[in-house]
Amino acid sequence: MTLVAPANGRSGGGRRHGLLTAVARQAGVSVGTVSKVVHGRRDVGAETRARILEMLSEAGWSSDQPIVTAQRILVVFRDLDSPYPLELARGLVDAAAAQGFEVVVGTTMHRSVTEWIDGCDRPDVAGMVLVISRMTERDQRRVLDTHVPVVLVDPLSEPMPGVPNIGVTNWRGGRDAVQHLLDLGHRRIGIVAGRPHSPAGGARLQGYRAGLHEAGIAFDSGLVRPTDFDYEEAIEAACSLLSGPEPPTAVFATSDAQALGVLEAARRLHIAVPDELSVVSFDDTSNAATASPPLTAIRQPFEELGQVAIRVLQETLEGTAPGVDHYELATTLTVRASTAPAPAAGSVDHPGHRERS
Amino acid sequence: MTLVAPANGRSGGGRRHGLLTAVARQAGVSVGTVSKVVHGRRDVGAETRARILEMLSEAGWSSDQPIVTAQRILVVFRDLDSPYPLELARGLVDAAAAQGFEVVVGTTMHRSVTEWIDGCDRPDVAGMVLVISRMTERDQRRVLDTHVPVVLVDPLSEPMPGVPNIGVTNWRGGRDAVQHLLDLGHRRIGIVAGRPHSPAGGARLQGYRAGLHEAGIAFDSGLVRPTDFDYEEAIEAACSLLSGPEPPTAVFATSDAQALGVLEAARRLHIAVPDELSVVSFDDTSNAATASPPLTAIRQPFEELGQVAIRVLQETLEGTAPGVDHYELATTLTVRASTAPAPAAGSVDHPGHRERS
Repeated sequence: MTLVAPANGRSGGGRRHGLLTAVARQAGVSVGTVSKVVHGRRDVGAETRARILEMLSEAGWSSDQPIVTAQRILVVFRDLDSPYPLELARGLVDAAAAQGFEVVVGTTMHRSVTEWIDGCDRPDVAGMVLVISRMTERDQRRVLDTHVPVVLVDPLSEPMPGVPNIGVTNWRGGRDAVQHLLDLGHRRIGIVAGRPHSPAGGARLQGYRAGLHEAGIAFDSGLVRPTDFDYEEAIEAACSLLSGPEPPTAVFATSDAQALGVLEAARRLHIAVPDELSVVSFDDTSNAATASPPLTAIRQPFEELGQVAIRVLQETLEGTAPGVDHYELATTLTVRASTAPAPAAGSVDHPGHRERS
Repeated sequence: MTLVAPANGRSGGGRRHGLLTAVARQAGVSVGTVSKVVHGRRDVGAETRARILEMLSEAGWSSDQPIVTAQRILVVFRDLDSPYPLELARGLVDAAAAQGFEVVVGTTMHRSVTEWIDGCDRPDVAGMVLVISRMTERDQRRVLDTHVPVVLVDPLSEPMPGVPNIGVTNWRGGRDAVQHLLDLGHRRIGIVAGRPHSPAGGARLQGYRAGLHEAGIAFDSGLVRPTDFDYEEAIEAACSLLSGPEPPTAVFATSDAQALGVLEAARRLHIAVPDELSVVSFDDTSNAATASPPLTAIRQPFEELGQVAIRVLQETLEGTAPGVDHYELATTLTVRASTAPAPAAGSVDHPGHRERS
């Protein structure tokens, strides 16, 4: 008897419910744990293993039979060229390993999303996690059509109906960043924001606006610089922001890449951080903790993102997915050394100030 | 007919040479390309595909037959907690994808090296890349025993006979770092080195010593601070180094993590980089380019490390491995903004200097 992974609950077609699911439910363990026992993996408790083996045996399975179990998860990124996808990869690899899954990591540099889906329509693949900010229409249709379980993580495009997606509280995080600066007495707060087409970036900007509004501070579009989540672009944008006639005393950068660019711009302009300029970042990859100075940042919960993505795939596989399509995990504020109380008025010698005097 | 991947050239036992290798040789392409055709992958040129299909057909294969091809490579790290393993992962994933392999990424957090090897002794796995700095004796024995092709990347332990290992020119890179500082006029050069047990760290330290020796500068053990390749430890070590009575005018940090610690130490001591202190790093992960100031660094060729690792696995699989066990890829110097000519004597107001006056 060939064991086959449980059917994908989404489309209901294509695969039979396998013995693994039945045994998992009977034993009160996950399908992944039964899979480990079938594969002779050692990281299962002896009592649990014995119980599972007995149930498998009663169901007619023996260890010399071929098995095809859904033990592999594909995680596909656009690329791995920056800390953000790499930290997500880490969260996913760790979470998947804890559940007994192997993780195939790939990018769309050599294969399109469609080709990846085509390639993983086989019984050993439990599902796919896509971390692709923007997909072509063709790829989106393939995601909607396939019966392979797919989860999207932090898509920058609009969510697709019926495809679970997991993100973070971008709006709330943006507001929390501004609130932290307001608490330190800052009133003139700039933002190096994302591009207009980016829903995540847009939400962070809206959070910034909401924070200012709640404090009775008028929104000033002159304090906004939209760039890609890109270090080099942010240096240029921050130099512009900090060289104006009335520069901000604090800047909220909506990604670590941009925050590092703001720090570099400040260094080039001989503006001391945090004494003369406070900087808050968003993401909190390892870059933030080792920046100079270490960055106060709104943290994306990378480990939890991985855990929820894997859990949603498991539930889809076992037909127990809750029907909730959109998950927003809470960001948190990590305070480090890049923020400080606002300098007293007139005490800061910015390049912009020097030009006026 | 079931196709099976070619035998592992190392042990000569266990697997039959498969049709894929024969067709690959006949067609003058890689086994990976034949595998792509067999799997119906689209990223093969039409003329090549037709030629390969004809040869397969002549050999009796047709597309409805089950296939087991070695298309998966396992890459196992100790963890993915720092930029270095993540950049290596990227290099390996990209190089493998270009050759038609899928990459399973794992760590030893949940499975030991032995358990990973046990789990990948199956026909679909082409081989393993281990990026584990130090292995237990048990794991080393398992690596030596297995007939699964294994390649070690940048092991910090001594190389194991018969197991290909790929590293970088640590000694030469250390010497190049020092030479760059000597060219800028520095004479008193500190080093935040690796721990004594680390062969890679030791080689970088020896390169530093060789560079000084060639310039006729006496080695001063008081300018050496051995730490793990760790940011926090390096901050403390650099604070000590920079607070002494005769602090160095330049520091060579033997990893990006340590270099970032040196930058942070300098910031805390109000020492301007590079005006008062030059800093050279080793690794050149993305952290180095976005540091403040962007770090001059000895670059580890991450992409080439990945490419060579994949190629050696392919050659081992196809039985054409050259018999060379140890590869050292050349590092290069990337000059950025953290190094500058040595300040004139007496012009630097270091904390150490202030204590004396």
